[in-house]
Amino acid sequence: MAGGFHHDLPQTRGVFDIFYRDVPDKGSFVLAAGLAQVVDVLRDFHFSAADIDYLRSLKLYDEDFLQYLANLKLDCTVSAVPEGTPVFPREPLMTVEGPLDQAQLLETVLLNILNHQSLIATKARRITFAAAGRPVMEFGARRAQGPDSAIYGTRAAIIGGAGSTSNVLAAKMFGIPAAGTMAHSWVEAYPSELDAFRAWAKHYPDNAALLVDTYDVLNSGVPNAISVFKELRAAGHKPVGIRIDSGDIARLAKAARRMLDAAGFQDVKITASNALDENVIPALLAQGAPLDNFGIGEKMITSSSSPVLSGVYKLAATRTNGVLKPKIKVSASIEKTTLPGIKQTYRLYTPGTHEAFADVIALADEQLEAPLAVVNSNPLLTSKRIVLKEFDAEPLAAPVPLDQPAPSDVFEIQRYAKGKLSELPIETQRLVNPDTYTVYVTQKLADLQQQLVDEAKQD
Amino acid sequence: MAGGFHHDLPQTRGVFDIFYRDVPDKGSFVLAAGLAQVVDVLRDFHFSAADIDYLRSLKLYDEDFLQYLANLKLDCTVSAVPEGTPVFPREPLMTVEGPLDQAQLLETVLLNILNHQSLIATKARRITFAAAGRPVMEFGARRAQGPDSAIYGTRAAIIGGAGSTSNVLAAKMFGIPAAGTMAHSWVEAYPSELDAFRAWAKHYPDNAALLVDTYDVLNSGVPNAISVFKELRAAGHKPVGIRIDSGDIARLAKAARRMLDAAGFQDVKITASNALDENVIPALLAQGAPLDNFGIGEKMITSSSSPVLSGVYKLAATRTNGVLKPKIKVSASIEKTTLPGIKQTYRLYTPGTHEAFADVIALADEQLEAPLAVVNSNPLLTSKRIVLKEFDAEPLAAPVPLDQPAPSDVFEIQRYAKGKLSELPIETQRLVNPDTYTVYVTQKLADLQQQLVDEAKQD
Repeated sequence: MAGGFHHDLPQTRGVFDIFYRDVPDKGSFVLAAGLAQVVDVLRDFHFSAADIDYLRSLKLYDEDFLQYLANLKLDCTVSAVPEGTPVFPREPLMTVEGPLDQAQLLETVLLNILNHQSLIATKARRITFAAAGRPVMEFGARRAQGPDSAIYGTRAAIIGGAGSTSNVLAAKMFGIPAAGTMAHSWVEAYPSELDAFRAWAKHYPDNAALLVDTYDVLNSGVPNAISVFKELRAAGHKPVGIRIDSGDIARLAKAARRMLDAAGFQDVKITASNALDENVIPALLAQGAPLDNFGIGEKMITSSSSPVLSGVYKLAATRTNGVLKPKIKVSASIEKTTLPGIKQTYRLYTPGTHEAFADVIALADEQLEAPLAVVNSNPLLTSKRIVLKEFDAEPLAAPVPLDQPAPSDVFEIQRYAKGKLSELPIETQRLVNPDTYTVYVTQKLADLQQQLVDEAKQD
Repeated sequence: MAGGFHHDLPQTRGVFDIFYRDVPDKGSFVLAAGLAQVVDVLRDFHFSAADIDYLRSLKLYDEDFLQYLANLKLDCTVSAVPEGTPVFPREPLMTVEGPLDQAQLLETVLLNILNHQSLIATKARRITFAAAGRPVMEFGARRAQGPDSAIYGTRAAIIGGAGSTSNVLAAKMFGIPAAGTMAHSWVEAYPSELDAFRAWAKHYPDNAALLVDTYDVLNSGVPNAISVFKELRAAGHKPVGIRIDSGDIARLAKAARRMLDAAGFQDVKITASNALDENVIPALLAQGAPLDNFGIGEKMITSSSSPVLSGVYKLAATRTNGVLKPKIKVSASIEKTTLPGIKQTYRLYTPGTHEAFADVIALADEQLEAPLAVVNSNPLLTSKRIVLKEFDAEPLAAPVPLDQPAPSDVFEIQRYAKGKLSELPIETQRLVNPDTYTVYVTQKLADLQQQLVDEAKQD
């Protein structure tokens, strides 16, 4: 930025796209998340006096530049897909236009926020898909990568479909139901497990969910829970459930279910936790494990099987004295070469339905009318001409107002996400080896890219 | 906590150990980190009026309890190993003693901080070990799991051996050298790569590190860099280096080195980046890649190949009316059964040397004198009696004052870590299939554990 300041870069405006190439866990799409926090950052972007003092102490910058930073007002515009939108590889989640130095300055924080929250929302979508309608509770705060990672990861997990959290601060900040059961240490603190359960039931007679695996699930935990549930029932209360947090969940849950049912507690729920994810849950359910809901820890809050969303921030155009100049970053492979120009992504529907069959990335000033000449983008088959004859097209990205906070009701965003997911083919939502959803690039955009590749070669 | 409040749990004090069982990346130890932030949290622990209002809104708690929270003053003591200490499985990183309800309340935040920073410090140790003395720059902010995860992950990366960071906020907060080169977008913003390099060199004549892979490393980037380096040399400046961020780093670096040397720039350094980690770096060096330093991104800041440190918080004892009662959490396997009582870990050295040969976990009130009866803890061989005849013993954990911030000079901590690492057998520091470092448990502690296991079975 300092280099740019002294070489008139600020007079040039840049257009940057944020997109990704590889889907975590070999899925077919990512759920966009984090826009509300990006807007918060942009609305409050400034250098404090302490920041300027620190930068001065580095002895790298002259006073003109430091003064410029101290007075910096962002002059950027943003367009983005709404949070909760399923986006496919190469489709911009966000586009930033502003003075080149400012837009470059924003790269790291915008990528950080969108990469993180989109990653966790995507993982939560997978886990709730595996849970097939059973409630998923976010239980990961102990293992998240730092306190704020737990908080904003929980926000993203709700967007991806989780229903509650044990993170009370996140619950407070985002209006999420707080959920949890007792700790093992509660049970250990009492002379006996039965004493511990009774003390809990005395305090929460109508909210008694008992953790039954501190000593021995089937020989101690479940029998003691049943004793306390009987006492509650005798006193007119309705017991809630048990939680199993260790051992073989399927075997233990089946046996516990039989014991609970035999004692007349058919309504008592069984919650499973302990290193669950979208692989383990279906495996347990497939063996008939009678599980009613799930507490998901580290596997969701860190997306541990695929802990990085590799979103990038790439220059798509410059604008100097009002003249737009599309730009590309050339790579050895055409798939990695960026898409130039200001673009829009459209979701294409079978006319008159809500059934999406493909997306198309177009230049923003193109009229999207049938017949539309396109090429396939994955892989980029520029030689294979395709003409789309019938479609309804819906643009995915929209300008983001920066004079107000972005919509941030997480359950509203979750509902939006569920709606957009319901429009996608179920086969592309599959967890293992999902069907590839087609993303086209318009012929016009593909031609522009080829032209810029040719020009770069001549340089 | 609310349950405890109404059942007199606050009168019981609890002693909780934080330890872990599995080492990330199948290494043999973890570098402890995060203590300074834990101390900050404990020193400022309180519920705000807004917190109390939120908790009241849940309609779960009565006013007596809310008032208790509003006036809560932590009454906990902490002991811990210093940041930068290599710790082995089952050895407490930290022990917390306090009223049972308070100590339980702290579990999540303490685990979160220690798990996160220890994970990243451990990963950074691996990567700097692989770099074998070549400087490692932290470049991961774009892909960290949230903004604070980037900041505190950077702190931990320095503790683990990194030397600088591109995260300027972390640099400011922790006194870390800020490092970086230009962005690809800098190069793209100019009419030509040569123009971009010249503009950079004009502004940073004595700090010209040029990114040479925007278009074509060997046919464009390096030749243009050499042209600009010659101009700098003619003007009396000393060029710094080039950075290669894509393509086959080994092949490109070898060719670039030949071109730079042929032009008389033997002192110009070659920096490599792009998805590097402790596996890739040795593979490149083994093929003779002439790399001088490394920029490490997502693989370090998320510990992506092993993104969770599974530290746990387990009750080791209660103290009621001054009477200490050791506690265990029994598990199906003796390895997972916790070690009861208040403990201390000692590093054992060959007498008169700084060569550590084993650790031993003892009860805190044991005298550690030879001959010392111990059992091996990994696996726990309680039947195999071992007597240690000669050792110098150094305790690892010490009380942590909570009336002042913890030492937080990250390079001081890094030096301490390097010192402690130098005492460990080099074979246990190996990255692949490291030798198991022996951790003993004293016979007295093993006997206590067995006694409590037997008692639990009788319950």
